[in-house]
Amino acid sequence: MTPGTLIGVGLGPGDPELLTVKAVEAIRGAPVIAYFAKKGRGGNARRIADRWIPEGRIEIPLYYPLTTEVGFDTPVYIDTLQQFYAEATDQLAGHLAAGRDVALLAEGDPLFYGSFMHLYVRLRERFGTAVIPGVTGMGGCWSLAGEPMTWGDDVLSVLPGTLGEDELAERLGNTHAAVIMKIGRNFPKVRAAIVRAGLLDRAIYVERGTMPGEQVVKLADKIDDEAPYFSLILIPGNGRRP
Amino acid sequence: MTPGTLIGVGLGPGDPELLTVKAVEAIRGAPVIAYFAKKGRGGNARRIADRWIPEGRIEIPLYYPLTTEVGFDTPVYIDTLQQFYAEATDQLAGHLAAGRDVALLAEGDPLFYGSFMHLYVRLRERFGTAVIPGVTGMGGCWSLAGEPMTWGDDVLSVLPGTLGEDELAERLGNTHAAVIMKIGRNFPKVRAAIVRAGLLDRAIYVERGTMPGEQVVKLADKIDDEAPYFSLILIPGNGRRP
Repeated sequence: MTPGTLIGVGLGPGDPELLTVKAVEAIRGAPVIAYFAKKGRGGNARRIADRWIPEGRIEIPLYYPLTTEVGFDTPVYIDTLQQFYAEATDQLAGHLAAGRDVALLAEGDPLFYGSFMHLYVRLRERFGTAVIPGVTGMGGCWSLAGEPMTWGDDVLSVLPGTLGEDELAERLGNTHAAVIMKIGRNFPKVRAAIVRAGLLDRAIYVERGTMPGEQVVKLADKIDDEAPYFSLILIPGNGRRP
Repeated sequence: MTPGTLIGVGLGPGDPELLTVKAVEAIRGAPVIAYFAKKGRGGNARRIADRWIPEGRIEIPLYYPLTTEVGFDTPVYIDTLQQFYAEATDQLAGHLAAGRDVALLAEGDPLFYGSFMHLYVRLRERFGTAVIPGVTGMGGCWSLAGEPMTWGDDVLSVLPGTLGEDELAERLGNTHAAVIMKIGRNFPKVRAAIVRAGLLDRAIYVERGTMPGEQVVKLADKIDDEAPYFSLILIPGNGRRP
């Protein structure tokens, strides 16, 4: 029996038409389709891939045991997540050992802040793997905004909004272009750091880019403090150009 | 007469199967296909898109007047490029004004260090535009290498190899993950900066990722100083993970 291959399939930023041809083919060809989801929901990954999944596939939803109600650094968070990943790994390993390829769907790009990676590093020593890159969420957002992000010798910094305000402000002051991810509840802090770095006028807020309900607004024009998980802030570069 | 739309089409990192479904549809639907190319060559963008371009399209190759033989900061470089972009803009504007959509092919992602941007900013005040994001070259390379790039709260820095060695070393020492682009003749300097930052053991060199002749090697195992234009170096992050 030849074991199956674990295929990380980048789904892109949200628009189902932004899957690559290779991703579509992988989804169509795999007998088992796995994806992460929040409990009680269909899952955003499943929704993005929906039109490409043929009927009759074995589907494996992997429900996160918790999201933001427990701190990232607490032992209970780490233990719970470790157990979740171990169980998900076993579930996929069962199909792989039985010779079935498993397409594990990954929003954006599988190897760029992706949950896919947690199972990938647990399975890659035992099974063959392939990774199909995807358009990142940030790429979908800057295309939607229509803003050139990096010119010539520009340095781009990708910063998680979870960083402290001081560190964010310092890093923003020491780069040409920036993307700030993981806004959500960090939004007021992130905005304060952008203001401190003198970048408010260049900052663009994008919510649910390339998905239903997408929104692009200058950060200076956004007056409330609400930002969902699928939001980020772009600071386009302004570098050398003829 | 309704003017045409300028469509920036991200081609992805090189593998023709890594175009998005949307990019393929845009190429199939546009009466005019434009792309940058080096003089005397067919052009890498044209090659990537080849299988998706229907017969009988109007094709506009835009031949760079010079590449690396003249310094980026010299007046002759800037003048020559400005004239080139102005002429290319006029050429595309003629088709747009005549009501024909123009698909301008862009390797990787159109708004991420893309030549597309130079014509886009010159045309977007006069014509409708759309930008279809693509998988970046770096995304293609880290998927090929199979290395998770960013975990949890990792900061990613995208650094052009054109930066000075001191600045490169300093920035590498102040980030969790990095991608160094535009290697080419900068390779010995870039390697020296990586060694100074103590990152040689984590660095991965990728050449022509997802294209014919692709190569992945640990930087520590690469003994020569040769690196083509389509090469980059990855420093994968090592951040928080359960």
